[in-house]
This record gives sequence, structure tokens and C-alpha cells, in this order.
Amino acid sequence: MPSFGDIAPRLTEQAIELPSWAFGNSGTRFKVFGQAGVPRDPFEKIADAAKVHELTGLAPTVALHIPWDKVDDYAALRSHAESLGVGLGTINSNTFQDDDYKLGSVTHADPKVRQKAIDHHFECIDIMGETGSRDLKIWLADGTNYPGQDDIRARQDRLADSLAKIYERIGEHQRLVLEYKFFEPAFYHTDVPDWGTSYAHVAALGDRAFVCLDTGHHAPGTNIEFIVAQLLRLGKLGSFDFNSRFYADDDLIVGAADPFQLFRIILEVVRGGGYGADSGVAFMLDQCHNIEKKIPGQIRSVLNVQEMTARALLVDRDALTAAQNAGDVLGANEVLMDAFYTDVRPALAEWRESRGLPANPLRAYAESGYQEKIEADRVGGDQAGWGA
Amino acid sequence: MPSFGDIAPRLTEQAIELPSWAFGNSGTRFKVFGQAGVPRDPFEKIADAAKVHELTGLAPTVALHIPWDKVDDYAALRSHAESLGVGLGTINSNTFQDDDYKLGSVTHADPKVRQKAIDHHFECIDIMGETGSRDLKIWLADGTNYPGQDDIRARQDRLADSLAKIYERIGEHQRLVLEYKFFEPAFYHTDVPDWGTSYAHVAALGDRAFVCLDTGHHAPGTNIEFIVAQLLRLGKLGSFDFNSRFYADDDLIVGAADPFQLFRIILEVVRGGGYGADSGVAFMLDQCHNIEKKIPGQIRSVLNVQEMTARALLVDRDALTAAQNAGDVLGANEVLMDAFYTDVRPALAEWRESRGLPANPLRAYAESGYQEKIEADRVGGDQAGWGA
Amino acid sequence: MPSFGDIAPRLTEQAIELPSWAFGNSGTRFKVFGQAGVPRDPFEKIADAAKVHELTGLAPTVALHIPWDKVDDYAALRSHAESLGVGLGTINSNTFQDDDYKLGSVTHADPKVRQKAIDHHFECIDIMGETGSRDLKIWLADGTNYPGQDDIRARQDRLADSLAKIYERIGEHQRLVLEYKFFEPAFYHTDVPDWGTSYAHVAALGDRAFVCLDTGHHAPGTNIEFIVAQLLRLGKLGSFDFNSRFYADDDLIVGAADPFQLFRIILEVVRGGGYGADSGVAFMLDQCHNIEKKIPGQIRSVLNVQEMTARALLVDRDALTAAQNAGDVLGANEVLMDAFYTDVRPALAEWRESRGLPANPLRAYAESGYQEKIEADRVGGDQAGWGA
Amino acid sequence: MPSFGDIAPRLTEQAIELPSWAFGNSGTRFKVFGQAGVPRDPFEKIADAAKVHELTGLAPTVALHIPWDKVDDYAALRSHAESLGVGLGTINSNTFQDDDYKLGSVTHADPKVRQKAIDHHFECIDIMGETGSRDLKIWLADGTNYPGQDDIRARQDRLADSLAKIYERIGEHQRLVLEYKFFEPAFYHTDVPDWGTSYAHVAALGDRAFVCLDTGHHAPGTNIEFIVAQLLRLGKLGSFDFNSRFYADDDLIVGAADPFQLFRIILEVVRGGGYGADSGVAFMLDQCHNIEKKIPGQIRSVLNVQEMTARALLVDRDALTAAQNAGDVLGANEVLMDAFYTDVRPALAEWRESRGLPANPLRAYAESGYQEKIEADRVGGDQAGWGA
Repeated sequence: MPSFGDIAPRLTEQAIELPSWAFGNSGTRFKVFGQAGVPRDPFEKIADAAKVHELTGLAPTVALHIPWDKVDDYAALRSHAESLGVGLGTINSNTFQDDDYKLGSVTHADPKVRQKAIDHHFECIDIMGETGSRDLKIWLADGTNYPGQDDIRARQDRLADSLAKIYERIGEHQRLVLEYKFFEPAFYHTDVPDWGTSYAHVAALGDRAFVCLDTGHHAPGTNIEFIVAQLLRLGKLGSFDFNSRFYADDDLIVGAADPFQLFRIILEVVRGGGYGADSGVAFMLDQCHNIEKKIPGQIRSVLNVQEMTARALLVDRDALTAAQNAGDVLGANEVLMDAFYTDVRPALAEWRESRGLPANPLRAYAESGYQEKIEADRVGGDQAGWGA
Repeated sequence: MPSFGDIAPRLTEQAIELPSWAFGNSGTRFKVFGQAGVPRDPFEKIADAAKVHELTGLAPTVALHIPWDKVDDYAALRSHAESLGVGLGTINSNTFQDDDYKLGSVTHADPKVRQKAIDHHFECIDIMGETGSRDLKIWLADGTNYPGQDDIRARQDRLADSLAKIYERIGEHQRLVLEYKFFEPAFYHTDVPDWGTSYAHVAALGDRAFVCLDTGHHAPGTNIEFIVAQLLRLGKLGSFDFNSRFYADDDLIVGAADPFQLFRIILEVVRGGGYGADSGVAFMLDQCHNIEKKIPGQIRSVLNVQEMTARALLVDRDALTAAQNAGDVLGANEVLMDAFYTDVRPALAEWRESRGLPANPLRAYAESGYQEKIEADRVGGDQAGWGA
Repeated sequence: MPSFGDIAPRLTEQAIELPSWAFGNSGTRFKVFGQAGVPRDPFEKIADAAKVHELTGLAPTVALHIPWDKVDDYAALRSHAESLGVGLGTINSNTFQDDDYKLGSVTHADPKVRQKAIDHHFECIDIMGETGSRDLKIWLADGTNYPGQDDIRARQDRLADSLAKIYERIGEHQRLVLEYKFFEPAFYHTDVPDWGTSYAHVAALGDRAFVCLDTGHHAPGTNIEFIVAQLLRLGKLGSFDFNSRFYADDDLIVGAADPFQLFRIILEVVRGGGYGADSGVAFMLDQCHNIEKKIPGQIRSVLNVQEMTARALLVDRDALTAAQNAGDVLGANEVLMDAFYTDVRPALAEWRESRGLPANPLRAYAESGYQEKIEADRVGGDQAGWGA
Repeated sequence: MPSFGDIAPRLTEQAIELPSWAFGNSGTRFKVFGQAGVPRDPFEKIADAAKVHELTGLAPTVALHIPWDKVDDYAALRSHAESLGVGLGTINSNTFQDDDYKLGSVTHADPKVRQKAIDHHFECIDIMGETGSRDLKIWLADGTNYPGQDDIRARQDRLADSLAKIYERIGEHQRLVLEYKFFEPAFYHTDVPDWGTSYAHVAALGDRAFVCLDTGHHAPGTNIEFIVAQLLRLGKLGSFDFNSRFYADDDLIVGAADPFQLFRIILEVVRGGGYGADSGVAFMLDQCHNIEKKIPGQIRSVLNVQEMTARALLVDRDALTAAQNAGDVLGANEVLMDAFYTDVRPALAEWRESRGLPANPLRAYAESGYQEKIEADRVGGDQAGWGA
């Protein structure tokens, strides 16, 4: 097994994008519990994200969600971010909160609604110009609740047509990333339910179109690391939305529900060339901290990804390949587990300190007074949430 | 196979309770789409429910949800209902929308929060006295999102203790009905996740405590008709929350996702003595009409239950038993399918007319002008929804 | 809604291929229950299949499984089939019953094992020449049971390489059809787990490579009709393996577990151009009659497909489209359900008689004396099963 | 967190029962791959099991399966076991491999078949007297494949009746343990599908009847540790069948698929009083080593259980309770994860050595020459498998 020293240099390449909306209120259809200190605007969201980066060194960019993060002056938002040590990242479109989209957006039977949804993406691309973002990420709530409600096939054709119009606007150094989701909020069919559908569409679009894999968007039992390996093989893995789940799209803290699955996913990422600055694969979080504090929730999340990356890097790849080629089932599995069961936390703490970061970022946050400060300062105004 | 004439008398026994909240707005965590004409208060909800009963003869009672349906004068609400030809039914408690309940209600670690939740149930029992309701239905959102977050076992003990206190207040002719749910809004564990847990608790409480089976609250693949048969055998099936789903607790129109499953469920109800006025099993709907119109959605739902009940009653039970006892796998299955594939709709339409009801209740509703009237009249005020 | 007379002509186009192995013994890992009268060789299997066709007019071809159906003289087998009124259809390869394939076949780390598996497919293609078969169907048991056991990505590359070698041998009028399966007999990963993987491979192979969709090979909750619509849109749906399931790959009689799902699947087939002689989509059964009699099980199966096809053809497509385009959720659903709930059985019985077929093929079989005859005649010898 | 020294004494209490059949051949319905050196009779199985205990100190008893492990002289078998340092444990009945049981055993419609199945259990109880076994474990393959095939409710009543007759024979110091299973080999319904059903039956039987929890016998997503906690609370957890799975009842090595789940399960066992010599809860393995070597597979399994037990014992219970009672969601979760992520392997290796056991039992086995010896010696005869 490699030593921690062997792999430490690769850890410096890690960059995890934080979603601005993780700092706002979120919840279930039953209740959104508000929390003290929650941001009231995109500037405050970015401040919170920057705090996570300051304490961990892992989260240099922040993803925005349009229209939730619309501001009058994106240059100002960008300067604000940069002054706090972070950059603006992926732009996420939103076509699920307007009454017009009740029965679909880019797949809607009515061409006027489709055009409205396309125009929204054009606006997002304009914003990308101002924020300097590379990726336009499209997650569609489109789908139906009842068999017969709409024409599944016609919706695919409309989807392809709408995506083509959006893709045409994407700049030379920009990318379109299409997310898939098994179900919710549509409960009979979704228009992009699986990686195959997303892949078929982005393959038809062209070289700057990619698939986004949200780890919570699969059927029960789906082998996600297989999809990772397959999409990397096909050259079409654009980005991750990390989170975890026990049941459906629970949006829990990444690594919380099944740490071993996270290990296997990251291992395939590393093996398939999806890790590191040159990889073109964006690591993002997409979670809901419904009951836990948001900033510590994000710190815990990036640490989970980092720890699991360290374990994945520790896998003795030569020994693994040797055991695999020898047909040594138990031996090969043991090589893998050896890395997984290694406690990387002490070495990581030391390594953090050596780079001027707190050994224990969660404790550092608790002792920083930041939480108390935002709870005291952010009084009045409208707390950010999924509606803004 | 029996003729329709043979089974028609049993159809008159059918009574399906409508949930008041089905007429208010509902949605997903992503969006609640409002609809024109939605009630602004419990009186308007009951008017809509009464319309469903007027056109179908199937829905003589309305379930209330406290606090959503709190009124100053329950006697007035009861008179209002009765003047429209319906009665007030089950009282549903709600312990999931108060900030205090973020980490639990009757299972909360803090005894003050538990007492608050218990007191809420006492209030519900008081209301039952005024509304003349028989059943107190308890669905708990209690659970945890993260392993370790709370003590699963201690929560069971607190649950048992809280339920015992509530049960003690239940009147001699009243019942406590405990619902179970696989997941949501809690995403790691729920405190009453399955029928076994609900059964263990109601068995410990006593003779007037029963299980509520919501058809959408199970793990994928669960054989629900088995649970129906088992609970009837154990004498502990108190009520149903009918709806349908493809994935999770989708809350679609009953029978929409898997009509054959609904058939099998009702067949076990009928066979196990759970059908009819004397059965003690309450048939309720619990659905969300997120994108379809609410009143037609409810009409469609009660008709689906009625049609499937007719098919279940048509099963040639003697032939079925004979084939079963002969070990004739295909023959026994065919007896069942013969009833399922029988088109009962024309006979039901005629039968409805013979009883002074419209042959086609959905068309009658469309032609009644009711929808236009409520859309015109119910302007201003706050539309009812899951928050009220 | 169209009348039965309107759709009857299209019913004559229906052709369902029967699997030779459905007539042999099958079971679970716990037990294979033998049945009296089971065929001892491919000639007897074809005789049984021909009986199904004789009584239903629905099953003009029989699929073979190599090596289970290896014979010395395929011309003789073909003549035998034709003399009984049926033809030989798809050739299914088998790379899961040789000790060499314990850790994989066309994906195995050892090039010698891969070549052996490729050679087996060459042999199948040779047989196709003799039997006049169009399709080579490849289902792979390849996969792993433990994380780390083998290199998921390397196996994909080996798979692509092996398939390319096989595809090269496929004749100009022949096709390679690649099946996917979620799990079993491999329990950690399978090398072709989903339609996306099969699609990516057949798209890379060329115009004569297609996907095979087995209705039991998906994760729980998967919307199969969506995949049908998508593959037809992409021009890559080659064939179906029909069966049904409640849990995993249960291989029950098609339509037995969820008739409404079968209706929706066939509706998408019809709408997407996958139905009829010119469609290029092969309808096959792939089932296990573990506890029921095999020949009646197959008769029941083809009748289920026929009845559901009639219902799918009865959908009022114009009314459906109109309701869909009007955004009438309940109305569109009702158009669909109207066809599903129509009892087509009496009209089909009449139509069968008009074509010289028995009105009730199952009763005709029971009265034919065929079962008694084979039970009396087929004594001694080795009953066919999954091993032969 | 406690130190390893603090918990080491509790580790000595660990006893994991090995199933005799784990040393025989096993497989899937597609193929059983034979392995060199597999036992030909119960004596050889016990020798292999004893080897696992010799090297790990963890597996002092062996469970038998009747009739697979029938011998003429159980006293001789017992002496053989004791001479090798192990004892005979649970007796497992088998009612799934006789043709009479095709449609059921203790639930069969035919009273003669039911009596045959009951008599088989009487025979097992007789054997228990000779082997000195405490537990009779009953797993039933009973169920149906098609709706209508048999009467679900009547089968429950027959089940209750048959179990009562068996229970009556159970000795004063013996126990009846009833296993449940979600599906397979029955694919529509199983007669004991869930813990609730098993609990209802054993509660009706009496104080010496308990539930057996097989970790692979649940619906997807089921929270197993909840069931553990609940059954311990109800005083009805009798035994475990440990294994792991990604999909269905995969029967993989325990801890292989989801180590964190195993950790959570064992933690609830420990917390609920289910661990240790006095607990009354039997820890058993029930796995299939389809492709890996059997003895190393069992060694790996007991080590996985031991390592996870160490981690569970390391949980700082006071800190956990404090965080839970403070409503500190992230803090409580972190206390749990802290134990899970601790690498207990070096300390366990040392501790093993201090007790005269090999530090690395797998390496010790590889170096022992035992595998080579059995492969050389066990030539000829019939290898043991699920049929014997």
C-alpha cells in the first residue's frame, strides 16, 4: 500500500464546488424548518461558502442557481467572492418553480412554454459570461404523474430539440451538463430518468455536452461506480452532484449513508482519470441540511469526500491488478478493503496543519464565532431557501 | 362467476372517507402549484367533499386534520356537513409542522416536547367529542436522518409511553389508529416504519387500538395484500389510507399506478371480513392532486375503488377454492383474472342510475357548473394547503 | 375508441417466439421440480412449441439455446419444425455453464477464456446459417460478486473487443442482439447491467447490432415503457424477452404480475413502430414454469400478450393526443384506462374461431389429450432442463 | 472513546456459529461451480469448520442442516466435533427439496403433506436430543408464484397450526426459531415474509419461540438495525443469519457489501443486550461462497464480524447519549463515525497473538497446507452441496 506521503501531493488537487443553496433553508414537502443565521441573499451565501473553504482548503468555488441567485451586478458578486478567496462556478438553471412549468418545461406540449424555458437557459448562459462560469447544468423536473398524461416519445423529441437550441448558444469554452433523475417531483415518468437517456442526448449534442451524475438519483440497488466507470470510458462524465441516501433522493451529507459506496465511486473516478485539475470532471455537492446546521454540514461533507479520496488513493493498484489477474477473489477484495479500513484521519489532520489549515475544521468553525456572528447579524429580511 | 346482480347489494355498503386536505393545495418539496377555486377554510373543503358524495354516493364522511381544520365551532361545522349530506369522520393529528418537532414529537428526547405532542392529541380527542368522530389517526413524522442522531431503542420506549397516555384518554367508543411509514420525511429511520412495529404497539395498548395501512408507505416490492390478510387475521386492521405509487409515497390517485394490486388488496379485505358496514375497517383516501383538478381527482378515486370492489366481489370464490385445493396453479390464477378482466363499468353505470345517481359522475361534475362557480367565487383569502 | 373490427387486421401480424427451454424443467437454486412429460431432446421441445402455435396461431417460431439444443443435424431439426408448422428463430448463446466461465466469459481477464467464449459465438453463427436464424442473442452472466474482484473498466474494454470480433462474423442479413441484466448470477456488478450499457456497445458495433430488453432485468421501479420508447426512437430495439416479476428476475408468466405495465409496454411498442411484421422487433418469451405445467403456461403467456395487444390497439389515439395537448391530465389518463379496462376476451374468442382456431386454446389443449400422451410417451431418457 | 484495552475483555465473549453447508458447493440457478477439496460428508464439513475455529477462536459451534447432514450416529458426529474443538449447534430443518413440497410444506392445502413436514421437524427435534442442540431453526420456502394460486389467509392459519404442533415437542431447554424472508424461491407471496409475521407467530407460540433475522431477507432499503432493536425490545430476537447483499438474498460474505450497515446492526445488538454469552441471541453465518474458496471465505466472515464488533464496542456511549440529548445531530453522528473509522485491525492482530492465535488467520490458513491436503485427499465420492 502506498504511504500517506506518497499520495499527499495528489490531495492538493482536490476541489469541491459548494452549492449556494445548501446555505439556505431546505426541507421536505411536510415542513421547511428555518435556522438562525441563514443567508438572506447571494452575497451572504457566498460568505458562508468561503468560510468552508477558508477552514478546509477544499471548496474553491460556489455554484449558483438561477433565479435564486439572481443579482443586479454579477461583477460585484464575483468580486465579493474573489475577495473572500473563492470563485463562482457552475450555473444551475431552474424550470420547476414557475406555474407555466406544471406539466413540463423544455418538453412541454406548448411551444410557447418550451421557448420560455429555452430563453431561461439563454439568460443563464448570459450570466455565465458575467460570472466566468464554465458549466451550465440542467436538471429538469419534467415528467408526468399518470400513464397517458403525455406522450413519452414526443417529449423526447421536444427535449432533443430544446437542448439543441440551448447547446447552440453555449460558448466555445463552456459546457452543457445534463443531469438525470429516477423520479421526483414527477411520479410516473421523468424525461431524463437514467444515465442512458442523458448520454444519448449529450452524445447527439456534441463535444461540449456531458452527463451530470447525482449520486441520489438512481433506482434502489443501482451500482453507481459502474456508471462512473462507463461514463469516463465514453468520455462523457461532466460532473457530480454528491450527496447520500438510504431511500430515495434523500440529499443527506455525502458519505453519511454508505461510506463504502462513496469509496468505490471515488476509486473509479481516480482510476478512470476523473480526478484532478485536468480531468474535466466537476465535483459538486448537492445536499439538504434540513435538520443539521448548514455550514458545519458542508464542512463535514467536504471532509468526507477528502477522507474517502485519501483512502481511494491508498489502494495498492499493482497488488490489486495482480490479484485480479490471478483470479484471487478474496485477495483482490482484501486489497481494496485494506485501503478502505485505513484510518486516514490523523494523517490528514497533520497534513492540513502543515498547509496552514486547522487540523480539525469542524472544531475550528465552532471556535471561530462565525455561527454566533451570523445568527446575531442576520436578523430581518427574507431567509434564502428553495424559492429564492 | 357471480352475476353483477348477485353482488350489487353488497356495493351499497361501500363508504369511502375523503380527506379534507385533498381539496387544498399540495405539492412536492420543489413546488406547490396553486389551483383556482381551492377552498379557503374547512367549510369550503366540506362543501367540495359533499359534492363528490352527491355525485357518487360513495363518500359519506370527511376526515379532518388538526390543526389545518381547526374551527371555533365544531358543532357548526358538523351541521354544515350534515346539511350537505355528509358527516365528519376521522380526526388526524399533526405533529410535523411545529419547530419544536424538528427532531421528533412523541418520541423526542425532551419530555416537554413529548408532552406538547401528547397534549395535541388530547386536544384532538376533545374535538372528536364535538365532531362525533370514532377514530383518532396518528401518523408520526418522527425519525432521524443520520445514524447515531438519536437512540432508536429509547425512542421506541418513549413512543410506547406517549401512546399509552393518549390511549388512556380515548373514549369507550373511540379508537386509536396508528399509521406506519417506510420513510419520509425522515431519511435514516422512522419510529413506526412497518406494520410489525405498529402492530406491536397497538397490541400492547389494548382492544381499541388498531393499525392504519397507507398503501404508499412500504418498501419496494412489498406484498400489501398479505399485510391486509395478516392484520385482519390478527384483528388489528383499523383503517386504510388509499392512494397509489410507482416509486415512494407518491400519493397518486388510488388504482392509477397498479390497478391489479388494488384488486388484490380489496379482495383480501372482502375475504378477511374487512368490507361492509359492520367490519370496523375504515376506507379512506389520502392522496395529493398536485397537477390534476382536486374534485374530479377525488371522484375518479372513489370510482376506482368502487369498480375494483365490484371486480373483487365477482370472484368465483367456490371455483377459486376448488382450484386451489386441487393444486391447479394456472386454473386458480385464471379464476382470479377472470374477475379482474371483467369490465364492470357499464353495469355500474346502470346501477348508479337506478339509484338516482349520475351514470357518469365525472361528466356530471363537468356539466354541473360547480367548478366554474368555485373558481369564480373563491377569490381572495388564503387557499388551504398542507399548512392550513 | 376504435372497434374490435377496426383493430382485428393488425392482430394477424402478431408473432411471438417461444423459447425451447420453456418446455424443459426449470427452478430456483433451492430446487428444480421435475414434471411428467417434459421433453428429452430439441425435437420434443419443438413439438411442444408447435402445439402452442397450433392452438393459438401466435407462436410461429422457436428460439434455440446453444449448447442445450445442439443436434447433429440442424437441417433435420428445421424440417421437423416446419413439418409441425413452425420455424426456428433466434439462436441464444450460453457462456455461463462451463467451469472456465466462473469469473467471466467474453470479459474474462484471461485471453484464452475470452477466445473460447468468442469461439462459442462463432459456432452459434454457424448454426444460424443452418437454421436460417436472423438473430444471435447474447446474454452474459459476466460480472463480479465482490468489490475489487475485477476491474470494472477493463472488463468493459474486453467486452467491446470481444463483441467486435463476434459482430464481424455476423452475416449481412443477421443481427447481434445484446441483452442487459441488473443482477444475477453476479451480485456486485454485471458487465451489461442496463440499457445504456447495451446501447453504448451496440451503437459502437454498427447497424446490425441491437438491444434486447428482458422485462424482468431492471431495478425496482424502473419505467420499462420509457426504455421501449427511447430505444425505438434511437432505432436500437432489437427484441424482447417477455416475462413478469414481483421482485427480481422472477421469470413468471408475462402479464401475471402487473398486467397494466404490460399494457403500457405494448402501447409504446405499437406507437413507436415496434409492432408488426416489418418492425424488426422480435417478441420473445423467456420464462420459467417452475410449478405450473409448461405447455399451458406458454399458451397462457401468448394469450396474455395477444389480449394486451388488442387493448393497446384499442386506445383512441386521437382522443389521447387531444387530451394530452390540452393538458387534461385526468382526461388523457381516462382515454388510456378506457382501453385497458375493456374486456377483449369475448371478441378475441370469436375472432379466433373465425380463423379456424379454438375459441379457448387452454380448454382445447386440456381436451386434446396431448398432455396425457406426452406423459405416457416420454418415459425414460433425460428430461431437458437448463443443463441440456 | 474507550481504548482497545477497555473493550478487549468483551471480545472474548464472541461466538459465531458456522453453517455446515457453507463448506459444500453452492451456486445460483444458472450454475453450481464445484471446488476441489469440498467435503463429501458431515464429518469433513465439521473438520473444515473446526479449522476456522482453530485459526480464529471465533467459531466454537457448527449448525447442521437436516437431511443434508443426516448421519447414522450423531453421538459419533458429536465426538468428532468435540475432538476437533467445536460443538454441534443449531439444527436447521429443510422442507424445500422434496417433490411433495412444490406448493408448500407446513402451509400446504393437503393435510398429509403438512403432517409430513411436521414429522420432519419432529425428526429434527429428535436429532437435537442427540446432538445437544438448543435451537431448531425453521426457514420455510412456502409461498406462491401467482396471485390466486392459494389462499394467503388459510395458509397463515395452517402455518399457525403446524407451528403449534412442532412447538409442543420442543424441550424445556430448547427453542424454536422462525426465520422470515421477503421472497425466493416463491415469487408472489411468501408465508413468512417479514419480521412482523414471524413475531406474531412466535408470540402466539410461547416463551421458547423466537425470530431469526437473516440480514439478506428484506426489501430494498429496509433499516435492519431498527428491526434488531425492536426485536430485542420485544424479547424475541433468537438468532441471526449473517451475510451481505447488494440486491436480493445474495448471500455474500458478511460485511462485504455494506460494512457500515454491519456496524450499525452490531451496535444495536450490543446496546440491546443481544451480545455475549448470556444474551440468548445466536450469531450464525448463512452464506454462499459460490466463486471464492470456502474455508478462507468463512475465516474472512468471522473476522469481519469480529472487527465490526470491536468498532461497535468502541463507540463512546456516554458522549453519544450526551450529543443525542443535546439535539446535536452532527455531533452525535460524529461520535458514531469515530468508532466506525477506527482501524481496529492492528490491535486485534496483537490481541489474537496474545491469546495464542495467529495474528493473521487468513495467512496462517494459506501457510497451513490444509487446503492442499483436502484437495489431495478428498478425491472421489460425492461433494456436499445443497442437495446433500
